[in-house]
This record gives sequence, structure tokens and C-alpha cells, in this order.
Amino acid sequence: MPVAHPLGALDATRVPRFAGPGTFARIPRIDEVADYDIAVLGLPFDGAVSYRPGARFGPMGVRQASRNLRPRFHVEYDVAPLEMLQVVDAGDVACTPFSIDAALQQIGDHARDIVGDSNRRIVAIGGDHSVTYPMLREARRKHGPMALIHFDAHLDTWDTYFDAPTTHGTFLRRAFEEGLLTEERSMHLGIRGPIYDRMDLVDDARFGFKTLRAGDLDTVGLDGAADAMRQRVSDLPVYISIDIDVLDPAFAPGTGTPEMGGMTSRELLHLLRRLDGLNIIGADVVEVAPAYDHAEITSLAAATVAFDLITLMVKSPI
Amino acid sequence: MPVAHPLGALDATRVPRFAGPGTFARIPRIDEVADYDIAVLGLPFDGAVSYRPGARFGPMGVRQASRNLRPRFHVEYDVAPLEMLQVVDAGDVACTPFSIDAALQQIGDHARDIVGDSNRRIVAIGGDHSVTYPMLREARRKHGPMALIHFDAHLDTWDTYFDAPTTHGTFLRRAFEEGLLTEERSMHLGIRGPIYDRMDLVDDARFGFKTLRAGDLDTVGLDGAADAMRQRVSDLPVYISIDIDVLDPAFAPGTGTPEMGGMTSRELLHLLRRLDGLNIIGADVVEVAPAYDHAEITSLAAATVAFDLITLMVKSPI
Amino acid sequence: MPVAHPLGALDATRVPRFAGPGTFARIPRIDEVADYDIAVLGLPFDGAVSYRPGARFGPMGVRQASRNLRPRFHVEYDVAPLEMLQVVDAGDVACTPFSIDAALQQIGDHARDIVGDSNRRIVAIGGDHSVTYPMLREARRKHGPMALIHFDAHLDTWDTYFDAPTTHGTFLRRAFEEGLLTEERSMHLGIRGPIYDRMDLVDDARFGFKTLRAGDLDTVGLDGAADAMRQRVSDLPVYISIDIDVLDPAFAPGTGTPEMGGMTSRELLHLLRRLDGLNIIGADVVEVAPAYDHAEITSLAAATVAFDLITLMVKSPI
Amino acid sequence: MPVAHPLGALDATRVPRFAGPGTFARIPRIDEVADYDIAVLGLPFDGAVSYRPGARFGPMGVRQASRNLRPRFHVEYDVAPLEMLQVVDAGDVACTPFSIDAALQQIGDHARDIVGDSNRRIVAIGGDHSVTYPMLREARRKHGPMALIHFDAHLDTWDTYFDAPTTHGTFLRRAFEEGLLTEERSMHLGIRGPIYDRMDLVDDARFGFKTLRAGDLDTVGLDGAADAMRQRVSDLPVYISIDIDVLDPAFAPGTGTPEMGGMTSRELLHLLRRLDGLNIIGADVVEVAPAYDHAEITSLAAATVAFDLITLMVKSPI
Amino acid sequence: MPVAHPLGALDATRVPRFAGPGTFARIPRIDEVADYDIAVLGLPFDGAVSYRPGARFGPMGVRQASRNLRPRFHVEYDVAPLEMLQVVDAGDVACTPFSIDAALQQIGDHARDIVGDSNRRIVAIGGDHSVTYPMLREARRKHGPMALIHFDAHLDTWDTYFDAPTTHGTFLRRAFEEGLLTEERSMHLGIRGPIYDRMDLVDDARFGFKTLRAGDLDTVGLDGAADAMRQRVSDLPVYISIDIDVLDPAFAPGTGTPEMGGMTSRELLHLLRRLDGLNIIGADVVEVAPAYDHAEITSLAAATVAFDLITLMVKSPI
Amino acid sequence: MPVAHPLGALDATRVPRFAGPGTFARIPRIDEVADYDIAVLGLPFDGAVSYRPGARFGPMGVRQASRNLRPRFHVEYDVAPLEMLQVVDAGDVACTPFSIDAALQQIGDHARDIVGDSNRRIVAIGGDHSVTYPMLREARRKHGPMALIHFDAHLDTWDTYFDAPTTHGTFLRRAFEEGLLTEERSMHLGIRGPIYDRMDLVDDARFGFKTLRAGDLDTVGLDGAADAMRQRVSDLPVYISIDIDVLDPAFAPGTGTPEMGGMTSRELLHLLRRLDGLNIIGADVVEVAPAYDHAEITSLAAATVAFDLITLMVKSPI
Repeated sequence: MPVAHPLGALDATRVPRFAGPGTFARIPRIDEVADYDIAVLGLPFDGAVSYRPGARFGPMGVRQASRNLRPRFHVEYDVAPLEMLQVVDAGDVACTPFSIDAALQQIGDHARDIVGDSNRRIVAIGGDHSVTYPMLREARRKHGPMALIHFDAHLDTWDTYFDAPTTHGTFLRRAFEEGLLTEERSMHLGIRGPIYDRMDLVDDARFGFKTLRAGDLDTVGLDGAADAMRQRVSDLPVYISIDIDVLDPAFAPGTGTPEMGGMTSRELLHLLRRLDGLNIIGADVVEVAPAYDHAEITSLAAATVAFDLITLMVKSPI
Repeated sequence: MPVAHPLGALDATRVPRFAGPGTFARIPRIDEVADYDIAVLGLPFDGAVSYRPGARFGPMGVRQASRNLRPRFHVEYDVAPLEMLQVVDAGDVACTPFSIDAALQQIGDHARDIVGDSNRRIVAIGGDHSVTYPMLREARRKHGPMALIHFDAHLDTWDTYFDAPTTHGTFLRRAFEEGLLTEERSMHLGIRGPIYDRMDLVDDARFGFKTLRAGDLDTVGLDGAADAMRQRVSDLPVYISIDIDVLDPAFAPGTGTPEMGGMTSRELLHLLRRLDGLNIIGADVVEVAPAYDHAEITSLAAATVAFDLITLMVKSPI
Repeated sequence: MPVAHPLGALDATRVPRFAGPGTFARIPRIDEVADYDIAVLGLPFDGAVSYRPGARFGPMGVRQASRNLRPRFHVEYDVAPLEMLQVVDAGDVACTPFSIDAALQQIGDHARDIVGDSNRRIVAIGGDHSVTYPMLREARRKHGPMALIHFDAHLDTWDTYFDAPTTHGTFLRRAFEEGLLTEERSMHLGIRGPIYDRMDLVDDARFGFKTLRAGDLDTVGLDGAADAMRQRVSDLPVYISIDIDVLDPAFAPGTGTPEMGGMTSRELLHLLRRLDGLNIIGADVVEVAPAYDHAEITSLAAATVAFDLITLMVKSPI
Repeated sequence: MPVAHPLGALDATRVPRFAGPGTFARIPRIDEVADYDIAVLGLPFDGAVSYRPGARFGPMGVRQASRNLRPRFHVEYDVAPLEMLQVVDAGDVACTPFSIDAALQQIGDHARDIVGDSNRRIVAIGGDHSVTYPMLREARRKHGPMALIHFDAHLDTWDTYFDAPTTHGTFLRRAFEEGLLTEERSMHLGIRGPIYDRMDLVDDARFGFKTLRAGDLDTVGLDGAADAMRQRVSDLPVYISIDIDVLDPAFAPGTGTPEMGGMTSRELLHLLRRLDGLNIIGADVVEVAPAYDHAEITSLAAATVAFDLITLMVKSPI
Repeated sequence: MPVAHPLGALDATRVPRFAGPGTFARIPRIDEVADYDIAVLGLPFDGAVSYRPGARFGPMGVRQASRNLRPRFHVEYDVAPLEMLQVVDAGDVACTPFSIDAALQQIGDHARDIVGDSNRRIVAIGGDHSVTYPMLREARRKHGPMALIHFDAHLDTWDTYFDAPTTHGTFLRRAFEEGLLTEERSMHLGIRGPIYDRMDLVDDARFGFKTLRAGDLDTVGLDGAADAMRQRVSDLPVYISIDIDVLDPAFAPGTGTPEMGGMTSRELLHLLRRLDGLNIIGADVVEVAPAYDHAEITSLAAATVAFDLITLMVKSPI
Repeated sequence: MPVAHPLGALDATRVPRFAGPGTFARIPRIDEVADYDIAVLGLPFDGAVSYRPGARFGPMGVRQASRNLRPRFHVEYDVAPLEMLQVVDAGDVACTPFSIDAALQQIGDHARDIVGDSNRRIVAIGGDHSVTYPMLREARRKHGPMALIHFDAHLDTWDTYFDAPTTHGTFLRRAFEEGLLTEERSMHLGIRGPIYDRMDLVDDARFGFKTLRAGDLDTVGLDGAADAMRQRVSDLPVYISIDIDVLDPAFAPGTGTPEMGGMTSRELLHLLRRLDGLNIIGADVVEVAPAYDHAEITSLAAATVAFDLITLMVKSPI
């Protein structure tokens, strides 16, 4: 049952947006409310990246850019999300930068502490994409196998890299092998670029993913893509994971493995808004590496998307 | 009556574009000609911004980037604008950085000095968006109430902010209250993002604005948007105000309140070019904050747009 | 006859992409193989630019960004290009920075040394656009007059600039006068912006170019543009020259004469992929100026495009 | 009486420095402790600057860079400052960006609320230099007229600018006129560059300032400068105000009015450390404008200096 | 005879420094006064550089940064230079970017036009260092052979590079061969780094240069260096040429061939100020490449130095 | 016995420095010569950093900046180092980014392969500082325990961090525990800033380090520091390790844990040059993180220092 009178974001007419607390969109901290429905959780880990590191500063960068949001009334969704449910900033998971396995364990444990046996949901902010793995596990603990809507330039279903089973490019294969995902109900959107091996595509299909490549948007259109997503997911519990590199590097330069030819930010927002009403049990936005950003445009895109994910959750109560 | 033999821009085959005078597109200074038809006027004021300041350097940045223009023959408009009318760079208004009211007064006075009782028109370069307010007043003095085509990510019709009646987010409410705008003939294009209050939309409609949100472009298309603009304005005198943040941050990072999901630069140029032939009495491009720009892409976009505005004026003699 | 067992790119599962040799996409150096089919050749010359210099660092920048590529299996073309033909990095031409004529001569001589009387082809990486001139000459020596597909914001068919006959804005007029191009079979794509003189368009048409302006994409669509290219070229030998400024400055800020309103990177990739099967005898990507880039997005776009050009050549054996 | 067991900074062996709360140096928030001795207070106001704005983001930038500090044991001062007194982050004053007078009033009121009739002291983080004015007033309320050690490239004792009496370049004249400063006991350090008028020096001397210009360091040496400071102040209550532009632009590019030929960061730290034991009643570091910074070097310098100021206060209990 | 009542710089209390004309330090244009004593002249040529180009934008960058100067009363020199002599901004020489010889000829011709048979002097702003060559020639025409005080990281007396006799690294050998310099009376300051050949030092000494390497400052001290300069020059006519790369890259990143271990900006200013009273007949500051600058620190250093050069000239009337 | 006729660096009068192979200073690759004396080896690992990652791109960045060097005759050392011994670029160690232990093992193995039982020496380019650990081990294998000259802002003798025994802040404690270092003969230079615990200093002294803090340079002077180094080391075999953060952030912004108040680049070069003649058995420069650099100033500093280290080795044959 949602909180009756949620505590919303700081009033920008009283405290300028460039001042005041540094929580996501200046919403309350987790310790400022008695209970909450949705927690924004930072996952500052980037030990599993194969190219540019730096996503450990992602939560910090996204929170800072989120100061520019006006998180009261969301016109596209026709809702004031922070008046409907209690949303809080749960801070960061304090995970080691030195071990992939240990860090993902710490993230999973922390997520479990937040959710417990409640209906609380988490919008996670990465961190490299490996952090999605423990979040999927935690979601499965609560909701069973799920569909996954995966916005990304890359499949992330490769096998191993330097003998490491779980990296930001392999975690989805691990997730499939572990039974976290319902078969034939997940979807990649925005995939592009050459790959290491032709077999990668075969394997990926075997793991039950349908793929809409970035270039396909020019043929099926935004509505075609949106319809495909909704059909794929139907009324299953669904987790939404957004690697910010799904956007073209022009829109998201601040990321670890940029790939030419991606989505525009307007396309991504359009597709997200077509997920309205699905049964969303968890979500994240990952791979923001502020050291490569400029004028905070990547962090702002991620913050905007994170607020859309919150709004989508508000509109699909569980 | 236009000047018979206008003095055009410096010849790039004699003086390299990276050399020579720093006027807009290297056109003549106001004191180099006996009379003129169109004046480019810098409004270096940014005391009314709510987030990132820096638009005080906008006129300087836009002029510098305008060196890269080739302002002779405008293919899309099939005209050599600087051969048709005398266009000059009128320099900057010397306004105080310390008081919104005083600065806007100085801007209005300076604009009045330029126009007097002639048919001269001004293409202004901001500065934050509050500088449009005195320009609208001056246009009304000459032409009576007008239609407004307003490209922006934000409505700018909010009420007050920290007790200040006139800021870059509220000046259009003030303009409406003051009777500067013909009722039901103005239009916002490119609006997007969440807002402070659901009532903001209601108020905005009450002030006579029609709104085409950025995402609407994906449904009505460029032609639909252009037709809507032309219908809205018809043959009324019209002022065109372009907040550079109407562009997505990828295209215009150098601005004060960037908003994800905006127009592409090609869309903006397309829409502007569909205004050909309207009765344009004044225009501006504002909110360029060079400190957040890179490789001058924002300033170059604003300079390009300013040259289009000049060309539109040339094609609608008054 | 292609090499039987080409030596491919370094394995990213053994040597991280941020390590190892700095050749294009970590393919072999020219001296590591007995023979080869396609050579990537750096042309680090920028002495013929009219605005921002810096493309002398283009080959270095593009090679560095090409580390991020995964050049094994090219999904869009359904081919593993480096397994089909032997592709090598031929290094840079050591050309003087102090004389246009001498440098272009050195480039032409070096290209001739590479090709000789073999069927080897070159994908050149500029440098400013003047470097295309000696490459066209070398291509004509082998294949006779050719069609040209020219992606660019600018026509490059202007006459002279400061008495210099061959610059990055005039070389195509020189190429036409010299009989390098088959009449009426070449095409510009992505042209935009004002120009110096109305006659420039007349001259350009006289030189046998058909032009698809950037804004035309919004009316004819990607398929219309692709069809026009293929019809124009038919089965003629064709050279593909890509000035990276064909992209909008948001996608390619790191260039010498940026122009607002260009193509998106996805549009460029789409058009390139529609050239599949044409008789491609040479190609280049030019005008990358890393000093104006950020987060390597321009260099990465150029590297991606260069790999597509290689793949197109692989699919059109000569 | 200092707090018995102060709550220190977050343990960097448990929570990585790039994670966790965004308070200054990750010390406790003001609401997390019952009482405190020293408060770090953000003053995000930049409406009184004459050149580059942006210091409104100073408190945010300094806090972010302060994550990199290791604020346990201060070797140069041989003390663990956070174990001696309770230091807290008091957040930001919520002041209007639109009116100098109103904002300075809000800052003064907030400072008074913090200090009340206790012995609490404040280390303020600007903000432009005008914010020092209300802090001096508040210090005088408690301690009477004081000496001022003023590190700055500029005198800040000019009269008016655009009719505004209180700006970042004039506030010290106002402070003198108001009797906040003990006569003949204050000192400027680091002054340099040409000035508007020869009389500015005469006036400044009349207001009781002794000046050590940046270039004087090469003749009197660090020890000579330090001795001069200590003699000037003696055992008077002293306020230390550090405009970050006292550093050369190489060390502090992120500021509003940079001036060539300044101090090195090591010189500034050396001089600060020679203030050990003085009777310090208040302090600030101002004029950090992050938009002009790179790699956070200016913000890090300011954060380091702020921690030194805290340590100096700890060593001079009042 | 100096002008009786010189026209000074724009009043910063009436027109904010970020507004108004873009002349150097906002002094008058050359066409605004009847006659003048000192002309600031832009030499936007960079066709003779061996590494990073971009100094063609040097004059533009230095003028822009010079807005931040307060050019009234120069405390260190105890003089109001603009009240003593008429100083003007003479704009840029319109020289071709495509030919070293032609460009240097154009520069020399333009300088001669300015000076004629008057006593006017020029402070030139480069451009790469080759532009000093025609300025030395023009100075010799008027004053005969001269001493040269040369601040630089590099000797610039190398022989040829790619067969080009005159480049930014060889022009001083040419100047010596041509008899422009008095034998044994010139001096390099700030030289550092490895060189191409041991013989370079021998040759350089043969050309009559004395060298004070950057590291020597740590042994002879600033006063020792200043004394050496004054002794070397004595009462000869002297030209002062400052390659901004004499500063360490920390102080001047925006240059073409940076070299670790250079002077600090305070050291350079100190040495310049010790030239007070010498018989200065010409001066320049060169090699500012704004594309590599950040926060305008290099341009500001060059602008500050240029104003010191003007002041030095004012204090040594000829 | 050194190679008789070493192959030197590419001739910059034939191949411009911005062209040609990307080896360090354009020296030969390891496979281009039969044998060699000194190998430059890249160690692209940054998995052991506690704050900003990115040093995995250090070797790439340093090699790129090294193009600007003129590595023929080293004036300060009066030697042409590349004519005395054969120096090669040995490329990068291909180490995993995902495991500290595995990566350090790979680095050690690779170093052993290079050295074998020859007298070859290595100048390593990091990578984070943990990479020094296997290099010390390899040096001990050949030469027994050694003295260490350690330039750094931090002690790097902390114990553990998140349970990881070997990180960039702890490896020197491990090295001491393992007996790699001769007791009481090592020295830290440039240490500064607060620390985690007062005991850190006690421990560090126990491990046999003498410390010269950055601020001590202002009292003992450069000569005092140099004398202390030479006395400490005497004729022992010595390893020189340079963390680039020993420089102030103004000189080296591109690093992972910048610390205000460091050395200038001239001071560092001065101190290095005083090591001339010591018995240098190995050396490295580490912690260059190019993502935080600008204009390559940090990479250029590291490249310059690496060339000095090579020269020092050349002058101390073993």
C-alpha cells in the first residue's frame, strides 16, 4: 500500500536547484521517511569494464545532473509521480572496487536489505552493466523469472573475457544460464556495430532474446518498435535495463564503450513512454562515465531517463 | 526603402575568415554605413537565469562562431540577403549585470534608439531569455500586438521565482499581462520535460499559446508543425524568439537549462525555412552560454540561425 | 586473387583493446604480411584548410579510436571482412607540412608505390580534403575515369582561394578539369549552408555533379537517397569520399569547417550500407581534427566509417 | 566547550570515496549531531560578479572534489582535527539569485541562526566574494572589529560598479566604512595586475590595508610574508578570506576573474600553515566557478584549503 | 612626438568587460584616431609550424582574453600607459594560409605600411613564430641591426625542415644570416628539452646568442637572469619576442610545441619588468593556439604579456 | 655489452612527428632489432586504484605525447642516449583488467621474459602504481634487494583497502614485507596532504623510508633534496619510481588521486638530473590517466620524464 502523503522533492522556488541536498532530483533521503515505495540506489562499481572505466562516478554524476530536473508534474505521463508514491534516495552501495564477485555480492545483499519482503522497488544507477546481474537476481527472488527490456548498443551475452565469467559484456549469458529470465520474452533494443563472432548472434537468440537493431528503427519506426516491446513482454513482470550507450555518442559521449549510429534521446524517451502500464518490477540506467562527458549531457540524459523509470513504476503499482 | 547598394560582408578570398573584424559574420559596423535596414544587436545580460549562468558571453561567442559562416548566397532561400538590404552589427547594449529591471530598461532604451520611427528591424542575440521582454515591448510600440513563434524547451510563462517578477522563466506571462501579444495567435515549439505544476499548462493555454511539444514532431511531422505555425500566425506581424535549448543538448550543450529529447538542428532549420514570407517584425536567438559549449557547436548553431532570421526578414520587407 | 588465409585483427580476449599495437583496428602492419588486398593509409596533411587546421592529427586520432571497434563479424553486411581479404595498415605518408603541391605529390607517389600494377586498393584517412585529389589521380591511372560519391557539407568545387589552385575547397574542380571523373555520374550528399556565390551552384552542375542537400533527406528519405546514389553510379568504377563534416557538428565536432544541420551518424551508416555491391575502387574519410573533438566521438565515427568502407571493398572484389 | 566525542568523516576503508554522502569531506550533516563547533556552510550566490559568473556552483564543486581528501590526520599541523572538535556540513544557504541585497541578507540571517550566542564558527564556501560581507558582519556581532587576512588577486576595495554599492569588487570598502575591520590591522596577499585607477591604491591604504603583491613573494620570501601576516594580526580576532584567484590560473583556472602571475598552490598552503595559533573567528574560500575548471583542480585546491581552515580553527579554540 | 590626449580603453564602469568592441583590451581601432604611437597588430598565420597548428586563431584568442584586463594604471610600472601614448588596435594582416613566403611578405608589407617613416612601433600577436621574421626585417629598416631578447622553449635557429628555409623553428638562423641582428648581443631565455643534434648548440652560439636555459633560473635566480639580459642588450635598440611556450605547459597549454619544465607566469612577468627603460623598438608574443587552451589561461597570459610590452614601450620613448 | 650501432628514433626531418609509427618517441619496436639494452614497456592496468580509474590508457597517452619529443641529444645530460645503447619499445603487457593478482603476475612474467639473464633494463609506463610491485620483484631477482627513490604525493605503504592486500596505495608495504628493498636506504619525495592515520607515518618509517615532503623543498631547497637522495642511495642498485601525481595538479591534472601543493615540473626534472651516475637498475612512471588530462600536458610530462629515465640508465651502464 503506497504511503499516504509522500514527501516530495525540494521546492525550487525556495531553494535554488544549484543549492541544497545532493540527493537524486532533491528527493528525500531514505532515512528521512518512515517507509517508501521506490528507492533510487547508486551502484558505483566499474571493475568489470573492458574498455574505458569511470562508471564508478556514474551515481555521483547522475545525481548532480538531476538537480536540473523539475520533478513535479510529468506531462507526457500526465501524473505527479512523487505525490503518488514515496520515492527516496537510498544512497550508494559501498562495494569494493577490487573484486567483481565480491562487489556484486555486496550489491545483491544491499538490494535485498532494501526490498526485504516488502513491495519496494529499486531504480538503480550504475556503475558498469555488470551491476544489473545482482539486481536481476534480487528481482527474481521476489517475482520469479521475468522478461527483460534491454536498451543497449551491445548484446552483453558474450561468454567470457580474460577468464572472467561475469563482466559488463557477459552478464546476460550468466543471467540466462541461472534461470533469471523467462524464455523467449526478452528483447534487446538499439544493438549495433560489428561483433567478435558470428556465433554471438546465434547464442544470443538461443538465450531467448529478440533483437531490434538501431538501424531497424528506420524501417519499423518508433511505433513498430514499441509494439514489438509490448508484445514481447505482455503482462509478465518486466525489468528494464538501460545502458546509456544505447544513445548515439553525440547524445551520450560519457560512457565506456561508445558505438556510432545509436538512438537519439527523443527516440529513447518515446520508447520508454510506450512502456506505460507494463508490470515493471525493477529498472536501472548504467554505464555513465562522467570523465568522458561534457556539459553533463550524458548525466542529464541518464537522470531524465531515471525519472521516467520512476514514473513508469508509479504507474504500474504492484 | 531599403538601402540601394548595401555594404556586404568581408570577402573571404581576401581576408581569411579567422582574421579581420569581429562583427557578426564580418558584416559592417553600424557606424560604417549611413543607414541600415536590419541591425544585429548583442544583449549580454544573464542576471535572470535560474540554473547555469554564462549567457552574458553569448553575443561574444555567437559573433566568434559566425566567422565560419559564408554569408553570401543562401541556397535554401534562393537569395543573397546582404545584397538586398543593409544589415549591420550594432554592437552590444551596455547593460548592468546587477539588476534585472535596470538592465531590461537599458536594453529597451537602446532598441528604441536604434529603431526610432524608422522601419529598421533588430535580430537580437542574448543573453538569457528575459532580454526578449524589452524587445517585444519595442516591437509593440512600432507594430502593435503581435503573434509570437517561440522555439524553446520551456514554456517561460511561470509566475514568479524568488519574488522576481521578470526572469528567464516568467517573462512571457508578463508579456501577455502587458498586452504585447495578440490573443490566441502565439505558439510554443519544442517544449518538453516535466514541469513544476500541472496548473502551468492551464495558465499557459489561458495566455493564448498553442504548444507543439518536441515529441509531437514524431507524430505530426515537420510539415505538420510548419503548417500549424503558419496557420497560427497568418498575416499578423510576428516576432520569432529562439531559445537555443530548443535543440537537444547534443546539438546545443552550451546553454543554461538543457533538456533531454529536443529538436535536431536540421529540424530547427527546416521549420525556420517554412516561415518564409511571414510578416516578421523582430527576432532573437538567446541562451547561448559558451562556457558549457565545446568546439563552438552551440555558438555556430546560434549564428547559423541568426543568419536565417536575417534572411527571413530580408524576404519579408516591411 | 585474394590472400588465402588473411591475418586478421588482434584478439581482444587475449590483448585488451586499450593495449597492443596502434594500427587501425589492430590489424597487421604492411610489413607483417607477404601481400595484401586493401591498405589503410594515413595522409597526415592539413596545409590546404581555410578555417580550423588540425587534420594532420586525423590519422593518429582515427587509429586511436579504432581500438574500440570489434572488427570481426560485420552484422549489417553479413560478412567477416578480415577473413575474406588481407587488410593491412600501411602507416602514414611522410609528407611535408609546408607545401600543398609537394605534399600532394608525395601522397600520390606513395599511393602509386602501394598499388603498382596490382589490384590492391586503399582506404585513406585524412588529412584535409585536398588529399583526395592525388588519390583520385592514382585511381584513374588504374581504372580510368570514375564516378564519385561525395559525402560532405561543402561542394569543394570552388575555384581558387588566395591564389592557391588546390585547396580543401577547390580540389574537385581541379579533378573535373583534369578528367578524373566520368561526366554526369558523380554525386554530392549532405551539402548545406550558404555559399559564397550563386554561380558556385551553376559551376558545380556544369562539372557533372548531382546534389542531394542535407535537408533533402527529410523529403526523399534514406531510401530515395540511396536509390539516387546507386542509379547515378550504376556499374561504373566508383570512388567514395567522406568528409566527416557531412555529419552534424553534434556527431562530428572535431572537424575544420563544421556546418549546422547535417546528417546523423545513423543516416550516414545507412547510406553507406546501401552501396553494397558497387564497384568500389578507392575510398577515404577525411577532415577529422582531433583538437576539436571530445570523448573521441568524431574519431570513432570516422573509424567506424573506415571499417565500413573496408567491408564494402571486400564485398566488391576487383 | 568542544563536543566530547566528535563524529568524524566516513571511513574510506568501508565506503569508497567515490560513493556515499556528498557532504564536505564526507563529514556529518548538521542534523546528524546534537551540537557542533565548526560548520561548513555553502553560499551559492554569484549575482555580484563583474566578469565570468558560475560561482553559484562553487559549493557543489568544492564538496564533490572534497571526496578526494583523506581528512583524518593532518601531518603539517600534527593534529587529527575531526577528533578534536565536532565539524559538520551545514548545507547551503537558500538565497535568491536575483538580488544582491536580498541574497546577502539571507546569508547573514542564516549565519546568525547557526552561530546564535554560541562559540560556533563557520568556514564558508562561496559563491562570489560579495558573500564575505555578511560573514564579516556576523563575525563582528560576536567578536567586535577584527583583522582580516585577505588572499586575493584583487583589492576588492573599489567604490561602485554600475551603481551597485556591494559587488565582489567593492565589498571591502563597504566593510571598512561600516566599521567591521580594526584599523591598520588587515592585509592583502597575492594582489597583482593593472588596476582601474592610481587612486585605488591610495584609497585602499586609507582603509587600513597593508598589501603584499604576488611579485613581492620573490623578494621577501615565504617566511617574510608569513612574518608580516602574523605581525599585522597579532592576537586580534582575525577572519581569513581566500579568493581562489589568489592562485595563478594554472592552479585555479575555474574562477571568474583570473589574473596571470599568481601564487602556486604550495605557496598558499605554506602561508596558511604559518597562521597556526592565531585567533581565528571565521574564514571562507570563494570564487570557485566549476564551469571553467578542468579535472576538478580548482575545486580540489579550494577543498584542500577549506580543510586547512578547519584545522586552523581547531588549533585556535575560542 | 606622442599624441597629446590619447584615446584610452573603454570604461569598464559604463560598458561591462564582456560587452563592447573586440579590440585588444578594448582600446580604439586604428581608424578611430588621427595618429598613434603604438599599434597592436594581429598576425594570424600558422603555416610554418612543425607540430600542432592553430596559432592562426591566436590574435582572436588573445583579443578575447584581453577583455579581462584592467588596462588603466599599471602598478608594477607605476604608469598609466594609455594616457601617455596613443595605442591602437590595427587589426589583422590578411595573409594567405597557403604559402609561407607569400604570407611573410604580406606581413612585412603591412608592417611597413603602418610604420612608414614615423616612429610608430608595433606589438605583434602571432601566429606561429615565423611571423617574427618580417617584423625583425621591418625593425631593421628603421633602426638598423638590433639586439634580440628571445623568450622561448626552443632555439629556433635550426637550419631547414622538409626543405623549407623559413619555419617557426628556423627563422632566427635566417635572420642572423640576413644581418638583422647585432652580433653577440642577443639572448635566449627559457630554452629547455632535448634537441635534434649537438651541433645545434654550436651553431646557435656562432649566430651570437647567449642562452639562459629554464633550469638555469634555479641557479642564477631571477635577478641574475635580469642582469644578464640588461648587460647583453645595454643601450642597443632591442626587439623582444616571446614565444608563449617559454611558460611551462601548466601555464600555457594552448601552444603548438609545449615543453615540460618551463617558466612560471610570475617569473616571466618579473623578467619583463626588469627590461624597463631599455630601447625597445618592437615586440611580439606568438604561438598561442587556442584550440589547446582551457579557460583561456594561455590567451590571458599572452594578453597580459602584450600589455606589459606596450607599457615597456611607453616607458622607452623613441 | 651495449649494441654497437644502435637504431635510433625516426628522423623528424623526413617524417613529421605527427606521422609515422606510434612507438615511444618513435624508437624501434622490439622486433626490429636483434638485441637491445633498454626496453620501454607499457603496463596498461588500473584495477588497483582507489579513486579515479583510467591509467589503463596511460601507455597509449604517454606514447602519443612522446611524438613531441626531440630524442636525439639531451643537453642537460650532455649525451645522445639513443646512440649509446639500443633502446626499444617493447609494447604492452597483455594483462587482464579483472584481477589484480593475475594482472601483476602477467606483468612480472612478461618482464622476466624481457630481461631473462641478460643485463637488459626496463623503463615501465603505467598503469596504476600497483604495477611497480612486479617490476621490483623482477629487479630483485636480478640484482638483489635495492634502494628505492619514490616520487609520489602518497606514501603507498598503507596496509589493506577493502581486504585487497595489493593496491596502488599498499604495494610498498608488501614490497618491504617481501624483502625487496634494502633497509634504511629508500626515500619518498613529494609526499603531501592529510592521511588516514597518524600511525601511517610510524609504519612507513619502520619500513625504512626517509621522507621529504613537498613543502620541505621550500626549506631544504633543490640541492638539499638532491643531496639527501644521493646520500640515501649511495652506490646501491636503485629503482626509480615516479608517480606522476608527485607533480602539482596544475602540472599533472591527468591522474587518479591528485593532491594540491605538489612539485613543479622543473623541480622534478632538476631532481632527476641529480641522479646522474647512480646505479639505476629499473624505473617507471605511473598513474597517468589521460581522460583527466588536457592538451596532453600530463602525458607530455610523463613522456619527458621517461626519456630522462632512459638517459639516466644510459649513463649508468651495468
